[in-house]
Amino acid sequence: MESKKFLLQEKDIPTAWYNVVADMPRKPRPLLNPVTKEPMKAEDLFPLFSEEVSRQEFNDTDRWIEIPDEVRDMYRIWRPTPLVRARGLEKALDTPAHIYFKNESVSPVGSHKLNSAIPQAYYCKKQGVTNITTETGAGQWGAALSLAARHFGLELAVYMVKVSYHQKPYRRSIMQTYGAEVIASPSMSTKAGRKIITENPHYQGSLGTAISEAVELAMATPNCKYTLGSVLNHVALHQTVIGLEAEKQMEMAGEYPDVVIGCFGGGSNFSGVTFPFMRHNLAGERSTRFIAAEPASCPKLTRGVLQYDFGDEAGYTPLIPMYTLGHNFAPANIHAGGLRYHGAGAVVSQLREDGFIEAVDIPQLETFAAATLFARSEGIIPAPESSHAIATAIREAQKAKEEGTSKVILFNLSGHGLIDMASYDSYIAGDLQNYEVTDEMVQANIASLDKII
Amino acid sequence: MESKKFLLQEKDIPTAWYNVVADMPRKPRPLLNPVTKEPMKAEDLFPLFSEEVSRQEFNDTDRWIEIPDEVRDMYRIWRPTPLVRARGLEKALDTPAHIYFKNESVSPVGSHKLNSAIPQAYYCKKQGVTNITTETGAGQWGAALSLAARHFGLELAVYMVKVSYHQKPYRRSIMQTYGAEVIASPSMSTKAGRKIITENPHYQGSLGTAISEAVELAMATPNCKYTLGSVLNHVALHQTVIGLEAEKQMEMAGEYPDVVIGCFGGGSNFSGVTFPFMRHNLAGERSTRFIAAEPASCPKLTRGVLQYDFGDEAGYTPLIPMYTLGHNFAPANIHAGGLRYHGAGAVVSQLREDGFIEAVDIPQLETFAAATLFARSEGIIPAPESSHAIATAIREAQKAKEEGTSKVILFNLSGHGLIDMASYDSYIAGDLQNYEVTDEMVQANIASLDKII
Repeated sequence: MESKKFLLQEKDIPTAWYNVVADMPRKPRPLLNPVTKEPMKAEDLFPLFSEEVSRQEFNDTDRWIEIPDEVRDMYRIWRPTPLVRARGLEKALDTPAHIYFKNESVSPVGSHKLNSAIPQAYYCKKQGVTNITTETGAGQWGAALSLAARHFGLELAVYMVKVSYHQKPYRRSIMQTYGAEVIASPSMSTKAGRKIITENPHYQGSLGTAISEAVELAMATPNCKYTLGSVLNHVALHQTVIGLEAEKQMEMAGEYPDVVIGCFGGGSNFSGVTFPFMRHNLAGERSTRFIAAEPASCPKLTRGVLQYDFGDEAGYTPLIPMYTLGHNFAPANIHAGGLRYHGAGAVVSQLREDGFIEAVDIPQLETFAAATLFARSEGIIPAPESSHAIATAIREAQKAKEEGTSKVILFNLSGHGLIDMASYDSYIAGDLQNYEVTDEMVQANIASLDKII
Repeated sequence: MESKKFLLQEKDIPTAWYNVVADMPRKPRPLLNPVTKEPMKAEDLFPLFSEEVSRQEFNDTDRWIEIPDEVRDMYRIWRPTPLVRARGLEKALDTPAHIYFKNESVSPVGSHKLNSAIPQAYYCKKQGVTNITTETGAGQWGAALSLAARHFGLELAVYMVKVSYHQKPYRRSIMQTYGAEVIASPSMSTKAGRKIITENPHYQGSLGTAISEAVELAMATPNCKYTLGSVLNHVALHQTVIGLEAEKQMEMAGEYPDVVIGCFGGGSNFSGVTFPFMRHNLAGERSTRFIAAEPASCPKLTRGVLQYDFGDEAGYTPLIPMYTLGHNFAPANIHAGGLRYHGAGAVVSQLREDGFIEAVDIPQLETFAAATLFARSEGIIPAPESSHAIATAIREAQKAKEEGTSKVILFNLSGHGLIDMASYDSYIAGDLQNYEVTDEMVQANIASLDKII
């Protein structure tokens, strides 16, 4: 039997991140100041973010950006991660397709989020920041940042979306074990939170609301910066270590992917696994397909519009040119909490508009069926988020079987589901359901965008 | 900075297990038939266990036992595992000691237990068995066996100690996601369970009771075998892949351990990490120290007696020559559920009597303090069981600092604690306590042993 895993050594951890913006035929439109609606520059972000990530956010010329030694040192806790040929899944599907997955679930916090948490915390520390804030959905980003903050000696406050705070109490415990403060959002600790609680005392929260609270606290706290786990260019940049490693590993396997798949919330793991492969499409050398796998209950890339919108609910953030369902969109309480976000990052949105990215939306029950099949055939219980990528890979593998063609499929296993077992319980008990987004819901939210710009 | 992780390739996965019994100066005394009290042979175990592990149980001549290809293939899901130089922990302790840990937590079920679950399931399948049973404490063994059983197409029933069934519901969900049936023990489904429930309706269970139930069900079910996750020689044998890999990796690091540490329940991970290094002690080439880290609430190696005793509560199993607290010993409800067992395996017990093994007992609060320090300095949240090994490594590192000597310490990180976050919650909330075992408790239990043989 051929090798199942393709393993790199520590020396193979990338030394630079890949900045796809440098290679894009059409650059994304600029971020706009939320008040003046004027295009923003890196310096305009300095009050909110560390200076270094602010500069990275606007860098559209440097293809490669060096990874600091302090960051690579910490990457070595768990990187490089394995690339796995999913022979068990192939056999279960009886497909001629070759299925590979990049296993980002082996990080100590169980997901890819640490790839960006480390540089973000590092750059804050380097410029003398003492406190940071953030939001988290399912808790993957919050857990990762808690570990990174502890490592660099920063105090961290995390606003965790209320529904996940209760659905996933273990993630809260993980953050607290690393030493972070965790607040269920919406909360009474911010103006944005108070407003929403007053209007709707039973509101279970959203990433958009939690971002508003985290931004507000950062702006009100001395020597404090805000950090974000997805959506923005610099986050996608940091995540490219996934695809850069995977590229070397596919070479070890002697294959090149016909299709690369990532689940899609704001775009962090999707960008991370796809951009390094996409650079060969942008250079005209390859015609690989890239598929973003969204939840059917939050389908911005498949059913939203490309339009300037806020990144948060209260309208504190810069205006971002994004595929969006409207920043007030309240997604259903699916268990893939990390995908419950109304918009896609500017870079992904531009690449989608320009035809480099496909998108599919997957109903919740299909994701859990895929997750269970994957767990039983490959041994790893996947995160509900990652299960969207698995379901999409299965669709592609089944298509290959129907068509009688071979095909090389690569997807990113962004995280494991060991903290999400309550959602598997619900699935086993038959308590889960699909959530439909009606055209009326989308239209109503999108209509409100016209007032923004 | 030097490399942090020492990584092997798949070709380095051991091809044979190391059978320490072949090298022991004094062999362990034989297992005895629980009724006739006569020494047993491999064939006597055939009704209960697969034939191959029955033979392995009594093999005291072959130093190396070949690992079947089907088992190695499945090992490749996650093996080889990393050896890590714990520089973060060293720095936090400001110690001159070099601390290494073998990271068995990277298995898809989060612990070392899969190392033996796979061959046990494989040997059952190979001889045509269709159903298997087992018990589990914290759920690590049950989760591992659920995955292995699914892989080889076996139906599995797991008796899970009641206190853990409620403390660790996610482990139950993991087993169910892989397709196993999970029953809280004691249960009404067996004679042994009914007897205990009738006598004490509030009894929270123990490994000893769960073993009785699993054995009883296996004996009453056609074409069904029983499997055990610790204590017996063949389990220790399978676990030696840990130490065999670690030996190669310490060589890569250019060091040899002065002391090797494992936490201790029945002996599976302790044996796995220590025996391959111990063979050089047995050959007179080295004088490495080996420390078994027990919970203070269940201290068989430090405060029990070496005596024939049953492996289970109801007295169904063979009589085992073991360091024991008495098979009716009811350990306190500590969160390290996998260490709540009254006895040590026959091989470890003999090696302890002959001076090759040291033992320490660690109070619960010290283990969680060590776990939290480890999580914050190395990034990985350890299982409560493994935290006993960490606490012992910390004691040794602090001793090295006091004495101003260098020292190379290796411990086995048997599993991660992501499923055990409720116990961290209790620790953070200040709700955990230490449990003392009084001499009266030990004496009372040990007295009852005199009637056995």
